[in-house]
Amino acid sequence: DFLRALDEVRPSYGAATETLEQYRPGGMLDIGPQYHATLAELQQLLESVEQQEAVPLSAALLWGDSGTGKTALASTLAIDSGFPFVKVVTTDSMVGYSDAARCSQITKVFEEAYRSPLSLIVLDDIENLLAYRSVGLRYADAVLSVLIESLKKLPPPGHHLFVIGTTSNKEMMQTLGLSKYFQLELEVPPLDSTAVQMVLAASGAPRGVDFSAAAETLYGERVPIKDLLFALHVSAQGLAPGETTVSASAFQRVWARIAKAEA
Amino acid sequence: DFLRALDEVRPSYGAATETLEQYRPGGMLDIGPQYHATLAELQQLLESVEQQEAVPLSAALLWGDSGTGKTALASTLAIDSGFPFVKVVTTDSMVGYSDAARCSQITKVFEEAYRSPLSLIVLDDIENLLAYRSVGLRYADAVLSVLIESLKKLPPPGHHLFVIGTTSNKEMMQTLGLSKYFQLELEVPPLDSTAVQMVLAASGAPRGVDFSAAAETLYGERVPIKDLLFALHVSAQGLAPGETTVSASAFQRVWARIAKAEA
Amino acid sequence: DFLRALDEVRPSYGAATETLEQYRPGGMLDIGPQYHATLAELQQLLESVEQQEAVPLSAALLWGDSGTGKTALASTLAIDSGFPFVKVVTTDSMVGYSDAARCSQITKVFEEAYRSPLSLIVLDDIENLLAYRSVGLRYADAVLSVLIESLKKLPPPGHHLFVIGTTSNKEMMQTLGLSKYFQLELEVPPLDSTAVQMVLAASGAPRGVDFSAAAETLYGERVPIKDLLFALHVSAQGLAPGETTVSASAFQRVWARIAKAEA
Amino acid sequence: DFLRALDEVRPSYGAATETLEQYRPGGMLDIGPQYHATLAELQQLLESVEQQEAVPLSAALLWGDSGTGKTALASTLAIDSGFPFVKVVTTDSMVGYSDAARCSQITKVFEEAYRSPLSLIVLDDIENLLAYRSVGLRYADAVLSVLIESLKKLPPPGHHLFVIGTTSNKEMMQTLGLSKYFQLELEVPPLDSTAVQMVLAASGAPRGVDFSAAAETLYGERVPIKDLLFALHVSAQGLAPGETTVSASAFQRVWARIAKAEA
Amino acid sequence: DFLRALDEVRPSYGAATETLEQYRPGGMLDIGPQYHATLAELQQLLESVEQQEAVPLSAALLWGDSGTGKTALASTLAIDSGFPFVKVVTTDSMVGYSDAARCSQITKVFEEAYRSPLSLIVLDDIENLLAYRSVGLRYADAVLSVLIESLKKLPPPGHHLFVIGTTSNKEMMQTLGLSKYFQLELEVPPLDSTAVQMVLAASGAPRGVDFSAAAETLYGERVPIKDLLFALHVSAQGLAPGETTVSASAFQRVWARIAKAEA
Amino acid sequence: DFLRALDEVRPSYGAATETLEQYRPGGMLDIGPQYHATLAELQQLLESVEQQEAVPLSAALLWGDSGTGKTALASTLAIDSGFPFVKVVTTDSMVGYSDAARCSQITKVFEEAYRSPLSLIVLDDIENLLAYRSVGLRYADAVLSVLIESLKKLPPPGHHLFVIGTTSNKEMMQTLGLSKYFQLELEVPPLDSTAVQMVLAASGAPRGVDFSAAAETLYGERVPIKDLLFALHVSAQGLAPGETTVSASAFQRVWARIAKAEA
Ligand SMILES: Nc1ncnc2c1ncn2[C@@H]1O[C@H](COP(=O)(O)OP(=O)(O)OP(=O)(O)O)[C@@H](O)[C@H]1O
Ligand SMILES: Nc1ncnc2c1ncn2[C@@H]1O[C@H](COP(=O)(O)OP(=O)(O)OP(=O)(O)O)[C@@H](O)[C@H]1O
Ligand SMILES: Nc1ncnc2c1ncn2[C@@H]1O[C@H](COP(=O)(O)OP(=O)(O)OP(=O)(O)O)[C@@H](O)[C@H]1O
Ligand SMILES: Nc1ncnc2c1ncn2[C@@H]1O[C@H](COP(=O)(O)OP(=O)(O)OP(=O)(O)O)[C@@H](O)[C@H]1O
Ligand SMILES: Nc1ncnc2c1ncn2[C@@H]1O[C@H](COP(=O)(O)OP(=O)(O)OP(=O)(O)O)[C@@H](O)[C@H]1O
Ligand SMILES: Nc1ncnc2c1ncn2[C@@H]1O[C@H](COP(=O)(O)OP(=O)(O)OP(=O)(O)O)[C@@H](O)[C@H]1O
Ligand SMILES: [Mg+2]
Ligand SMILES: [Mg+2]
Ligand SMILES: [Mg+2]
Ligand SMILES: [Mg+2]
Ligand SMILES: [Mg+2]
Ligand SMILES: [Mg+2]
Repeated sequence: DFLRALDEVRPSYGAATETLEQYRPGGMLDIGPQYHATLAELQQLLESVEQQEAVPLSAALLWGDSGTGKTALASTLAIDSGFPFVKVVTTDSMVGYSDAARCSQITKVFEEAYRSPLSLIVLDDIENLLAYRSVGLRYADAVLSVLIESLKKLPPPGHHLFVIGTTSNKEMMQTLGLSKYFQLELEVPPLDSTAVQMVLAASGAPRGVDFSAAAETLYGERVPIKDLLFALHVSAQGLAPGETTVSASAFQRVWARIAKAEA
Repeated sequence: DFLRALDEVRPSYGAATETLEQYRPGGMLDIGPQYHATLAELQQLLESVEQQEAVPLSAALLWGDSGTGKTALASTLAIDSGFPFVKVVTTDSMVGYSDAARCSQITKVFEEAYRSPLSLIVLDDIENLLAYRSVGLRYADAVLSVLIESLKKLPPPGHHLFVIGTTSNKEMMQTLGLSKYFQLELEVPPLDSTAVQMVLAASGAPRGVDFSAAAETLYGERVPIKDLLFALHVSAQGLAPGETTVSASAFQRVWARIAKAEA
Repeated sequence: DFLRALDEVRPSYGAATETLEQYRPGGMLDIGPQYHATLAELQQLLESVEQQEAVPLSAALLWGDSGTGKTALASTLAIDSGFPFVKVVTTDSMVGYSDAARCSQITKVFEEAYRSPLSLIVLDDIENLLAYRSVGLRYADAVLSVLIESLKKLPPPGHHLFVIGTTSNKEMMQTLGLSKYFQLELEVPPLDSTAVQMVLAASGAPRGVDFSAAAETLYGERVPIKDLLFALHVSAQGLAPGETTVSASAFQRVWARIAKAEA
Repeated sequence: DFLRALDEVRPSYGAATETLEQYRPGGMLDIGPQYHATLAELQQLLESVEQQEAVPLSAALLWGDSGTGKTALASTLAIDSGFPFVKVVTTDSMVGYSDAARCSQITKVFEEAYRSPLSLIVLDDIENLLAYRSVGLRYADAVLSVLIESLKKLPPPGHHLFVIGTTSNKEMMQTLGLSKYFQLELEVPPLDSTAVQMVLAASGAPRGVDFSAAAETLYGERVPIKDLLFALHVSAQGLAPGETTVSASAFQRVWARIAKAEA
Repeated sequence: DFLRALDEVRPSYGAATETLEQYRPGGMLDIGPQYHATLAELQQLLESVEQQEAVPLSAALLWGDSGTGKTALASTLAIDSGFPFVKVVTTDSMVGYSDAARCSQITKVFEEAYRSPLSLIVLDDIENLLAYRSVGLRYADAVLSVLIESLKKLPPPGHHLFVIGTTSNKEMMQTLGLSKYFQLELEVPPLDSTAVQMVLAASGAPRGVDFSAAAETLYGERVPIKDLLFALHVSAQGLAPGETTVSASAFQRVWARIAKAEA
Repeated sequence: DFLRALDEVRPSYGAATETLEQYRPGGMLDIGPQYHATLAELQQLLESVEQQEAVPLSAALLWGDSGTGKTALASTLAIDSGFPFVKVVTTDSMVGYSDAARCSQITKVFEEAYRSPLSLIVLDDIENLLAYRSVGLRYADAVLSVLIESLKKLPPPGHHLFVIGTTSNKEMMQTLGLSKYFQLELEVPPLDSTAVQMVLAASGAPRGVDFSAAAETLYGERVPIKDLLFALHVSAQGLAPGETTVSASAFQRVWARIAKAEA
């Protein structure tokens, strides 16, 4: 199927792609039909950009709660796009930078993209790129200007650019007037109970896990995939040397602490 | 008729005009009577500036929703004006600039214009030139000062200047005290159903489109021309190699996604 | 009469006066009794400054709607004053300047004025000198300080200074504490219907105009002289080569657009 | 009496004193008992500073409406004090200065004062020194700090400092926490009708004035001395060459305009 | 037991560890079961980071009233972790630093940590690192950005990082959007009466203390350990040379003053 | 008694101590039991710092109305402490300084203190050190950070630091989060009628004063010692050459003016 196809075809585009790999360290698991639909829609837009002369610029937004897999998904799309220029714009490479330095780094990425006939840029975690604070409505206005102006500016004739944004604060996108630059908005939701089962089943989780019981604990909740994977690994810590199965109670104890912190 | 006339006569004024061409990449389609009326009014004002000694400075504002064709229209007017100096002031050439750099670039454009006996300046997307954010009423005040002062300052005796502004935020123009510097304010509205039909008919849309059915989908809505053209191209992406007609259902599926994003 | 007298006596004071001439490009028309009264009052104050040893400093404020002729009136007074030093402080010569540069330019004008035994300074369009925005109560505080401090500071013993301010925002003058530095406040009102008739009659309007009918259109309204003159010129644009009279309907069509924009 | 005594004894203390003279250009007129009482109280405090070892620092505030004579009074006291160091801190010598430059100029005046065994500093028009705007509560905080800290800091042992402040905004003094540094607060009120009569009688007003009638116009009003003197001089402007008495009607016409502007 | 084990095994990791020792000058006392539970939970997380390949980054937050022992606890954990890189980020080494200097110091600590395969960073007293003021919601936004971005950024492949934050303002963590980066949140509570007894018993308090009576004073209150230790030492000050036991009344007198200050 | 003891033992610690002397120019008078109690409490804390190894840092706050003697009291304690390092941090030595300069001066004082085994720092008039304005809640945040961080930072092992703060705005201390760094808070109240009598009796007031009657005037009021001493000296100014007793009426007249200014 589509998903598997994505994982199989991984051409190597040098440093940029290697960097992108780090955002899906454990590889991508199949987590159900909504995931497939999202991928298919993004794929169509991506192909339009590539093949339709009249679509020089297009942007899609992935939104959803913290830890639902937005960055991993965007990275996967970027890696699998086969575009000659792919780059992620992320705060990881800007810690401690001034606003001005952030602006010029982002501007530089877009300018490089304009030089390639076919480019893909991931604007990851837009609320953090903007240093957005919901309280007091504080954000880096110079960075916002760069984002808006870059999302609006056409690449040179004959060149094509696809932008994928990710955010866990969709309301902010509206508030700051960024929404209108994204033609598509797609939710990356937390896992439902079926998806949780798929993850538990598929995860080569540390030395095994007592599936049925653990899934029960989570039944009815919508779970960010990040928290689920984290809890699995931490609860595996208590295992005796020879043991390979995480007991339901060990998992539940860890999960209770993590989930409480999340509420 | 007038519209066709515009398209036929396209004298070449060098680099500035070539730059302006990029804002109407697919050429201009005839989209009905209101479009004609708007063009006629702007034309009269333009001619007054050119021929009446006593009208050294005049400004018109094009306003309307995002993607209705304001920039394309202003560019068309500028290209067809035949004025020896035409220039568009746009954020496209200022991404990542400081406020001070923006101010001096805008000031420079006006100073160059004063040197020509007959000049036309497009102030495109004024809300973005000002980095205006409706929430928190934030904007670049230094840039606003430059705009106000330039819109108020007469060119030297015997010289004439025509300014066309575009904005999708007419209320902001009032709020910031910019409205009073524009003698004419003209709306560029989204397409009504008749205009949609004209666009569908005229568009050499990618490999044809199933007109009647697609138009039906849009019946009763007012549609920005940008979104319509975009949806046409993306839906054409699904076509099989030999196929040349976008099916109504393919168009509708894409349109539903785009339009939802817009709401 | 007084008005005519003003126009006849125009001594030449070099560059400064030439600059002032540009603010009344079409010459000054007689627009009725209130205009005369205003001129007479300003004249008396001007003469006090010139002849009374005990009045070293005096200031008058001209206020009224946009385009009513405040700048033209102040320029006329300055030109006709015969004072050895006359200068207009205006944003026209400060486009793109920083606040600090504005402050030092204004300070310099006053310092030059102190060197002349008899000086007149026009502070034109004070709201724009201050970059005042009514929304958010934003303005250049450093410039306000310079204005206040200059309006308060006496010229050296034996020297005399007369200041004329113009503004279309009288309320702002109060809000910012500027009012108290002006001994006289005089309104420059929009034209009433009699004055409109006088302008239509007197204006060597482009190739004539069908007075009676055009005046009718404006009957009952108070009209800024700027808009009236503008509409006259633009409507003259439609005239056939041989024609010399603007028809009432042509004028009305233009006027409707302009006036709507003004509302 | 006391007042006359003040005027008679005017020792010369060089430049500073000459500068102070400019703030009472027409000399000081006797304007009644309250004026005498105010002078007497200030005199006692001044003498304490001079003669009591235990009062190294003292400050008095003169407050009252615009143009009531506060600066003239403070200057008179400074000139007549006979102190070896007297200086006025005023915006007149700081037009166009940055806040930092203002701070260092004020600091320098105090530091010079500390070097003299007996010093008097006039802080004139404190609201303008602070660039205080009642709307929006804006002011130069760095200057406020310098004022507070200077008003609080004792001169070196054996040295004595007397500070006189003037302001037309007593409420601001409280708001900004300046009041508590002034041991004495004295009002300089506008003229009552008796005082008006005294000024009219005493003023060598330009070529005489028809006292009784003019005084009538002002009967019952409280008049700032500045406005009264200004109106007298302007109304004298209308006199025919040989005439030496301002008619009541001429005075009343001018007064009506001035007073209206003041309201 | 666990606690004692911690105290016994203290490997020496050079300067960083010595610095950490200063935050628990008097050594750590056993203060009951909650303290043990907290330590055990932190220990499990720490071991996950060390041993689970799939947990490259993890963070825990210690929160509680002022003086409850958060910094001492975090330091103890860091010292006992045996990690090759341990460092505390604290305002102690940044007094008088600009925001920019703070940012670059924090950034540098994280960059050093990334170079070690196994690192532990204590972010001590986060409200002070941020110069957070609850009134007016003021804080150093640049520092907040650095913290958020560092808490989100993964160490290089194969490297592991554990972060312990401490704060006495848990609500701020939520307000500023910092909470979601901590997988675990653990309260460090003030002492209950049992714990008070344990401290009194265990403390080699200055020259002994009359336990039972002193404890009575505190019965029913929840007491920060810092205040209790402080009061014990100050009350010991009154002792006569030969005396070795603090009397209940001496302790009570001091305690009343301290506790009042705290209320 | 204790008080007298303080005055007798005054070891000389060089420049710093001489500077401190200037804050109690007339020497210290005994003003009753509360004063004694305050001194005793401070003394105990001071001795703890000196003698208890486990109290490396301690801080006490003196608060009370303007002019009650807080600075004089803190200076007295500092002088009499016998500590090898004593220093007062005051705006007196920072007039006209930028915030950054203030920060580095304060930081420097603390750093010097850390070098001495036993140090005492007076933070005088904290509201002015912070340039705190109650209206608009404005203050120097960088200075606040330096104060908080210095009050929290332990001196190096074996070194001891005692801090005395003074303020007339105790509420601000709470608002800005400074209170919690002071273990002791002690009020320095205005004089009650008994204390007023003691001051009148003790003061070698200028050439004597008619005690009973003057005291009556103040009976029932709580009087800052500063105002009382000031009024005594100013009223002594009216004395005839040979006279040595201030009359009750002379005192009352001055007192009425001063006290009114204070209300
Ligand atoms: N489909 C998937 N299969 C396996 N692992 C996944 C999948 N999606 C996400 N993950 C893992 O889950 C973790 C969280 O994913 P990711 O960082 O993409 O979430 P996010 O939505 O971007 O979170 P945030 O809102 O915090 O930025 C990552 O470690 C990622 O590798
Ligand atoms: N009359 C027309 N015929 C054909 N294409 C048009 C016409 N008007 C606009 N377009 C196309 O529609 C798209 C949007 O137009 P344009 O950018 O001018 O809209 P806009 O109103 O300026 O939008 P925005 O508010 O986002 O600035 C462009 O690709 C433009 O080429
Ligand atoms: N009395 C007059 N006779 C002829 N033309 C006039 C007269 N008064 C003004 N004008 C013309 O009207 C136009 C507007 O006048 P002006 O610029 O002085 O108005 P304003 O009140 O200063 O406007 P604004 O408020 O925009 O500054 C100018 O072109 C000026 O030459
Ligand atoms: N007693 C007086 N006799 C004669 N002239 C006086 C007297 N008092 C003031 N004046 C004159 O009145 C004018 C206004 O006085 P002054 O500038 O001192 O007023 P002010 O209260 O300081 O005003 P402002 O509030 O505007 O600073 C000055 O020209 C001054 O010379
Ligand atoms: N378990 C313990 N045994 C002995 N002393 C302790 C213990 N916990 C804390 N202390 C001591 O109590 C004092 C306060 O502890 P610490 O500074 O860690 O508190 P904190 O919660 O970090 O306070 P703050 O909120 O002010 O930062 C320190 O002197 C510390 O050495
Ligand atoms: N006990 C005392 N005996 C004699 N004089 C005193 C005494 N206490 C204070 N004074 C004197 O009273 C005056 C005011 O005291 P001080 O400056 O210490 O007050 P303060 O409370 O610090 O005032 P502020 O709030 O304005 O800082 C000083 O001149 C000081 O010398
Ligand atoms: Mg992400
Ligand atoms: Mg546009
Ligand atoms: Mg004007
Ligand atoms: Mg004054
Ligand atoms: Mg701590
Ligand atoms: Mg004090």
